Amino acid sequence: MEGKMKVAVMEGIGKMGYLERDIPVPKDDEVLVKLQYVGICGSDLHYYEVGRMGDCIVKPPFVLGHEPAGVVVETGKNVTHLKPGDRVALEPGKTCGHCEFCKQGKYNLCPDVIFFATPPVNGVFQEYAAHEAGLCFKLPDNVDTMEGALIEPLAVGFHAAMEGGAHIGQTAVITGAGCIGLVTLLALKAMGLTNLIVVDIMQNRLDKALELGATAVINGKEQDTVQEILRLTDGKGCDISFETAGTNITTEQLIRASKKGSNIVLVGYSFDGMLTMPSGLALDKELTFKTIFRYRHIYPMAIDAVAGGKVNLKGIVTNVFDFDDMQHAMDASVKEKATIVKSVVKIC
Amino acid sequence: MEGKMKVAVMEGIGKMGYLERDIPVPKDDEVLVKLQYVGICGSDLHYYEVGRMGDCIVKPPFVLGHEPAGVVVETGKNVTHLKPGDRVALEPGKTCGHCEFCKQGKYNLCPDVIFFATPPVNGVFQEYAAHEAGLCFKLPDNVDTMEGALIEPLAVGFHAAMEGGAHIGQTAVITGAGCIGLVTLLALKAMGLTNLIVVDIMQNRLDKALELGATAVINGKEQDTVQEILRLTDGKGCDISFETAGTNITTEQLIRASKKGSNIVLVGYSFDGMLTMPSGLALDKELTFKTIFRYRHIYPMAIDAVAGGKVNLKGIVTNVFDFDDMQHAMDASVKEKATIVKSVVKIC
Amino acid sequence: MEGKMKVAVMEGIGKMGYLERDIPVPKDDEVLVKLQYVGICGSDLHYYEVGRMGDCIVKPPFVLGHEPAGVVVETGKNVTHLKPGDRVALEPGKTCGHCEFCKQGKYNLCPDVIFFATPPVNGVFQEYAAHEAGLCFKLPDNVDTMEGALIEPLAVGFHAAMEGGAHIGQTAVITGAGCIGLVTLLALKAMGLTNLIVVDIMQNRLDKALELGATAVINGKEQDTVQEILRLTDGKGCDISFETAGTNITTEQLIRASKKGSNIVLVGYSFDGMLTMPSGLALDKELTFKTIFRYRHIYPMAIDAVAGGKVNLKGIVTNVFDFDDMQHAMDASVKEKATIVKSVVKIC
Amino acid sequence: MEGKMKVAVMEGIGKMGYLERDIPVPKDDEVLVKLQYVGICGSDLHYYEVGRMGDCIVKPPFVLGHEPAGVVVETGKNVTHLKPGDRVALEPGKTCGHCEFCKQGKYNLCPDVIFFATPPVNGVFQEYAAHEAGLCFKLPDNVDTMEGALIEPLAVGFHAAMEGGAHIGQTAVITGAGCIGLVTLLALKAMGLTNLIVVDIMQNRLDKALELGATAVINGKEQDTVQEILRLTDGKGCDISFETAGTNITTEQLIRASKKGSNIVLVGYSFDGMLTMPSGLALDKELTFKTIFRYRHIYPMAIDAVAGGKVNLKGIVTNVFDFDDMQHAMDASVKEKATIVKSVVKIC
Repeated sequence: MEGKMKVAVMEGIGKMGYLERDIPVPKDDEVLVKLQYVGICGSDLHYYEVGRMGDCIVKPPFVLGHEPAGVVVETGKNVTHLKPGDRVALEPGKTCGHCEFCKQGKYNLCPDVIFFATPPVNGVFQEYAAHEAGLCFKLPDNVDTMEGALIEPLAVGFHAAMEGGAHIGQTAVITGAGCIGLVTLLALKAMGLTNLIVVDIMQNRLDKALELGATAVINGKEQDTVQEILRLTDGKGCDISFETAGTNITTEQLIRASKKGSNIVLVGYSFDGMLTMPSGLALDKELTFKTIFRYRHIYPMAIDAVAGGKVNLKGIVTNVFDFDDMQHAMDASVKEKATIVKSVVKIC
Repeated sequence: MEGKMKVAVMEGIGKMGYLERDIPVPKDDEVLVKLQYVGICGSDLHYYEVGRMGDCIVKPPFVLGHEPAGVVVETGKNVTHLKPGDRVALEPGKTCGHCEFCKQGKYNLCPDVIFFATPPVNGVFQEYAAHEAGLCFKLPDNVDTMEGALIEPLAVGFHAAMEGGAHIGQTAVITGAGCIGLVTLLALKAMGLTNLIVVDIMQNRLDKALELGATAVINGKEQDTVQEILRLTDGKGCDISFETAGTNITTEQLIRASKKGSNIVLVGYSFDGMLTMPSGLALDKELTFKTIFRYRHIYPMAIDAVAGGKVNLKGIVTNVFDFDDMQHAMDASVKEKATIVKSVVKIC
Repeated sequence: MEGKMKVAVMEGIGKMGYLERDIPVPKDDEVLVKLQYVGICGSDLHYYEVGRMGDCIVKPPFVLGHEPAGVVVETGKNVTHLKPGDRVALEPGKTCGHCEFCKQGKYNLCPDVIFFATPPVNGVFQEYAAHEAGLCFKLPDNVDTMEGALIEPLAVGFHAAMEGGAHIGQTAVITGAGCIGLVTLLALKAMGLTNLIVVDIMQNRLDKALELGATAVINGKEQDTVQEILRLTDGKGCDISFETAGTNITTEQLIRASKKGSNIVLVGYSFDGMLTMPSGLALDKELTFKTIFRYRHIYPMAIDAVAGGKVNLKGIVTNVFDFDDMQHAMDASVKEKATIVKSVVKIC
Repeated sequence: MEGKMKVAVMEGIGKMGYLERDIPVPKDDEVLVKLQYVGICGSDLHYYEVGRMGDCIVKPPFVLGHEPAGVVVETGKNVTHLKPGDRVALEPGKTCGHCEFCKQGKYNLCPDVIFFATPPVNGVFQEYAAHEAGLCFKLPDNVDTMEGALIEPLAVGFHAAMEGGAHIGQTAVITGAGCIGLVTLLALKAMGLTNLIVVDIMQNRLDKALELGATAVINGKEQDTVQEILRLTDGKGCDISFETAGTNITTEQLIRASKKGSNIVLVGYSFDGMLTMPSGLALDKELTFKTIFRYRHIYPMAIDAVAGGKVNLKGIVTNVFDFDDMQHAMDASVKEKATIVKSVVKIC
């Protein structure tokens, strides 16, 4: 499909613009997708504000966005499981398939991954994307395309829940009720957990958590988080926990409020990449800290859970922006954290 | 609490009667429970019809019944977590706490277990029972006492699901839609699985399965079970399966319809204790067969799932009988399998 | 490297011969290996005697042999980790890398595997083989090339031991002391198990088992296998077991002699592909049956174990035949089971 | 057995003395053991030097010592598996058997554990001890009593190795070559690992590690630990690691030198109970940190490994002191860390 497409680019820190580029041509094992929705991730906002993350440095013009969904419009000649008209969610990371990690099934650890919107690889705030067909997952009729875009963050929640060994009957605590905390909440609820405690210091996020199924929330500014968790668990502590805030304080709270022998899943990155914690107490309790990097093998499961009515995925979205309005979309998402939890861009 | 109580006894094969016995006196670590509901299990019916199961032989007068729930009326002096008035579900097996299996946490394998209604140990179709307090689990306000009695079979379903490694996103097949098949269905649904295929040859049971959440049912008398499972899974086969019918035919069907590398959980006993299966095909597929014996550590999880609204537990009950009507209760449950799926006795 | 090579072919049931073929040309990601040793597997002998295994039917002239090792003589242009002169063991199965099983890391279940000497795919009783470089594992200086050829069967033993969850401190029983029983013994010994009981009905195999590290052997023709295992374990039964004989009798023996809750790894195929077993007893004991298909991710581990002196791999070899002597090699291996446990062909 | 016995007591910080006390009388489920060897643990030395560990405060006179072995001289009337004359290793922690953790088989986490030499519970630097028979493990003929005393620290090594998921084929790194580092080395070696890298800053400890089977050692004072591990692993990093030094530096080294997706087992306590680490890097690598508290279910396995010749347990002992010489034993063990790795007290 020849022609030009509109591409939103980061022109510099805090500055969005648009370019016109050729519509990409799908290779034999790729499909061309007309994008409809692309979510705005915290990492997009971080690049937008700071221009880098660790060694990944934005060189403008750079395309952000790695949570896409849309409609297949063309298929490469080797593609058999998709056809034009199919609506798909795009898993954003292409991996080598040959390295030790890929061979072991841990493809999220592939050192040669090409991941949308991770400099120098461009993202997909644009009208079309050509992508490996095996990474494009068909959406059932009862999952709409905006939900398709949200499969990406939901996959992080499911990966955290699965790797942490979450299961029905447990009491779970989630520190941090941003997008990742909320998708973890959704994943745990879908897996049958009924005691879900969410901790944050922003009331709008706690309200959203309650709306999405948290059974209790704790405002860390106003309440003693550890005491409150112990009170809610009859003094026993939680069975599993998820740290998505990336702070020493919340990590220590989880160590103190965890039942002996339990798992703490570390999902959130700290500001400076360092973490200080009371390891002696953790050893006395024989705790396990599992860190999480993106996800693997989760898209089919996540789509299935949404299709089966287990996940109120659109419930996390507080704001939908037009593709023509990217400057405002990014600025508002950065500045209005007291009201905006999750933004999505409607491409067409 | 001194006094007499009414006890229903099996007086011989196919013959129920009543005796009067002393109300038991709880020991220091026991509670006395006024029973309200006791479920009728397939093993009760088997003893009633045949008088034995393997080496366990009924010597009349024998008390059947091992799925009890009721209200605490007295507590032994060492009991701290229960008080009179608490409604409780009773886990029916007391274990030694000292053997290799108890120490490892696998108490269901304790060779010295004392289990209600397993000859020579009497069951609890009676007005009162004294039982180890640690095996009496308090029911929350929103779980009624009849549900409490049904926690026992539900525990089998959850144990099968947990040991089988079931998780959200899988397609599961259950062969046999009797009580155990149905509680397995309920457990899987509570754990987030949304593709649940149930196979039986009795339409009333398949109808019940659909009512309880099966997403597809197969009548093995009228349909080709293997082909139908393959059709329902786009040719891929199921991810996990549960054999509760105890037949060579259903076991072979699961082997043929299972995805490579998957688990088949064997729950059902065959008529003669033997199983013949196509092991060569199983080896080619690298299948795992997990057998299941009762359950361990499941009561809190099962009660939690019911309280959290994840399980429509009363939905499995087709018949409630009065305690005065035990002869009819047993006879009907034996004879009318085309309409009766699960019976419960209302004691008071 | 242009030229011709000598190839041993099965010309019909019980008949070997030789052909001359072109030396294969390695593709960009392949290496050309001058073969030095190729082991004779039970499946080679089965094809030789019967002409088929299940749906795999030999069409002469057919090349048997899938346990090769040799020296790299040429490398494709994309190969970086090998160079001419490197001695390598060849893992015999090329897999697609794209299917659900490959992606999950379970490549041994790939439906599109191309496996040496599995009709219609030819094997490697020949002078040269071109093979995917990623499947050619460099042998350290202290692992000789004949050991390299034996890595293939050893991999089956390690896969069985790993999948079965074997660990130090357990008492293991192996039924069947043919090549696969013996490599399982070697794997378990390398993993630190010190109580290793081997059961067979041929004394020469039991003697070999003792020579290789079995701590006790049972001659099933002369002793009561179950009683003997119980006696050797102070009545407790074994912690884990490996069935490599493929018979109902040995399977039932393991069910009876296993500790409750333990794993029985089914490795051996039965004559007719069917297995009859006392499932009721297995359920009462909550046993798990794990079947095994070939291996995955094992070559590096197995080579490491041999290099580290943990495995007396050449100890399993009873006979070495010349490549010029293939008719005799096959005939003797088929007929003289009372003295031949494992044969290897010296190619050059 | 009536009479008096000699007891070594800590009379204050840095001061040992002796008391005479009644020989204890074993209860019905206990045995009386005449002690022969008791090891000196790092925690004994810490109490001796500082008088406390966390909330556990020594009140003199206090008996240190929790690594005992000896000969049974009397048995309580319920004891059946031991008789006078049996040599035994004593597992030092009595647990309640009733709590959530005991029931789950994780008895090392029992909140009501009574553990030798953990204030206010006295230890066993004394001539006799009465102890729960189930915690006294009979030593085979080929395991001597000094080895019996060393089963306790070895159990820590095996628990770390088992919980960390160590297995044959892996390259492991151990930071810290004190007693716990060395027993971890011994455990890993027994489990079949052949690539064992030990890091310390004291050459005598590294020499001891080499003597006990380390395949490479790194002197952290003189070498770049991370670079050296990468060099030894062809740039791949280690597959599993064990941090026994309790420092930020060694923890960070392991994070940097670990392969993606691997486990770091945290065994060592830091001086102040806090740990600071580069969590961002750990998240990028999806590392898991498993902490370890003592051990569970390990004594039989550890004794079996020693009996089977898999562990050179006496090799860790550098010094044996007489019971009459406790002051010197403690002082020397504290002061001469450059030469003393592990001390044992010969009681009789």
